[in-house]
Amino acid sequence: MNRKQLFELIRQKRSFLCVGLDSDINKIPAHLLDSDDPVFEFNRQIIEATIKFAVAYKPNFAFYESRGSKGLQSLEKTMLFLKKYENEVFTIADAKRGDIGNTSAQYAKSVFDEPSSGFSFNAVTVAPYMGEDSVKPFLDFEGKWAIILALTSNKGSDDFQLFSDTDGKRLFERVLERSQQWGNTNNLMYVVGATKAEMLGDIRKIVPGHFLLVPGVGAQGGSLHEVAKYGLNDHCGLLVNASRSIIFASKGPDFAEKAKAEAAAMQEQMETLLRDAGLID
Amino acid sequence: MNRKQLFELIRQKRSFLCVGLDSDINKIPAHLLDSDDPVFEFNRQIIEATIKFAVAYKPNFAFYESRGSKGLQSLEKTMLFLKKYENEVFTIADAKRGDIGNTSAQYAKSVFDEPSSGFSFNAVTVAPYMGEDSVKPFLDFEGKWAIILALTSNKGSDDFQLFSDTDGKRLFERVLERSQQWGNTNNLMYVVGATKAEMLGDIRKIVPGHFLLVPGVGAQGGSLHEVAKYGLNDHCGLLVNASRSIIFASKGPDFAEKAKAEAAAMQEQMETLLRDAGLID
Repeated sequence: MNRKQLFELIRQKRSFLCVGLDSDINKIPAHLLDSDDPVFEFNRQIIEATIKFAVAYKPNFAFYESRGSKGLQSLEKTMLFLKKYENEVFTIADAKRGDIGNTSAQYAKSVFDEPSSGFSFNAVTVAPYMGEDSVKPFLDFEGKWAIILALTSNKGSDDFQLFSDTDGKRLFERVLERSQQWGNTNNLMYVVGATKAEMLGDIRKIVPGHFLLVPGVGAQGGSLHEVAKYGLNDHCGLLVNASRSIIFASKGPDFAEKAKAEAAAMQEQMETLLRDAGLID
Repeated sequence: MNRKQLFELIRQKRSFLCVGLDSDINKIPAHLLDSDDPVFEFNRQIIEATIKFAVAYKPNFAFYESRGSKGLQSLEKTMLFLKKYENEVFTIADAKRGDIGNTSAQYAKSVFDEPSSGFSFNAVTVAPYMGEDSVKPFLDFEGKWAIILALTSNKGSDDFQLFSDTDGKRLFERVLERSQQWGNTNNLMYVVGATKAEMLGDIRKIVPGHFLLVPGVGAQGGSLHEVAKYGLNDHCGLLVNASRSIIFASKGPDFAEKAKAEAAAMQEQMETLLRDAGLID
């Protein structure tokens, strides 16, 4: 899926919502624990309840890997289920990978190369610390995306990402500037945390055309209006992720219904924001 | 395994060699491809051939994840096999993980918490870009280690790691300084590439007591003598990794024998270096 197709999807669904499938087995509703695969069953119901309102789904690999091969099976089944909706959703492997060139090429296969790994995500999140050759192998897959961590939503983002050089340029700005040369607006996105929404203005000066994946709205406290104000561009340019606030809106038997209501409320706000920006009628 | 125990293991084996199990199914000897699990069979024979000469094994997860759940099974079997040698080797999950705090806690379970994930590695490699809360959950596991990327061996390491601030301090130095405060010499190591051996002197001024995991000797061209000259400390303080130069020393039926010869040659050099440094008799 290229940038134009993603924008079309956003216009169709009148939403730029990404649902984070951080499906911690210790937090899913108790009544699901009797299923053959409780995490898959949880994901399936969450997806069916929210598919009308979400343009993207983003399983965070940590919540699957923590359960070893059983966890990987839950993820495999989830992605197989999402194939039903192949042209209706964008899928993101939130795995924050990155290694030396020949090794990153293997990580790229692990998320993009279906015959090899079974997975065919549209995009993967990538850590930039190891530089160009750690990112390039992901960009070599036609039609796939690397989403580079720029400015993250957590407390520790202050430790290194805001580190300034002699010109007053911060590390995340250097990451944005340099990594742009490795790809283009059809295969590179950036992670920018909603908890740093006021910095989105500066970020848009460096990457006016790229999509940004924005976590931190919802449970982490970021504001959707602030994000839209500074982040929207002429192709929307935003995928705003919410995980816990949607998938764990209720821990009872009504979890899917409550997730649907949360997703619908976000979609409604997004529709207004898209309309106000002149991106939809 | 704590620092003192690791040093004792090094003294016993007269070696600080780590064998990297970057077991790419497309590079293993053709005659193994008829086995039930070719990659496990390859690893098993490599381990048996090199166990006398190596203190550590380091599977790089990318080479397993690229094959999906089949790859994970090969890794599971390999780690189960290594249990035979539980007190004779240190095991490193080379996975370069890191995410916001609650998510890194799940990654820590994925490599350390055997009842949950099936894995009980001694250590895991961690990317520092997301800062303190992305690293801390790994340090919360008693007796386990986080090995933080500081200065890597690849070309792209120049892109950001050498970025200097107004005091002339480079990003990797800032990572070393700040992250030291999060743990201690019994639960934190650093990755420092052998291709940058001349910088080990500067690094030892910042982290005199920590163990360093040093990739890049062998196929990547780093020199063992240079690494030892600048890197050895009073607890040895080095784990030098070789992957391709050992495991792919031959691609024929004699691969295990050739791997053994390569590992033995490195151990012999290491024994001399340890003796010259007064760390063994």
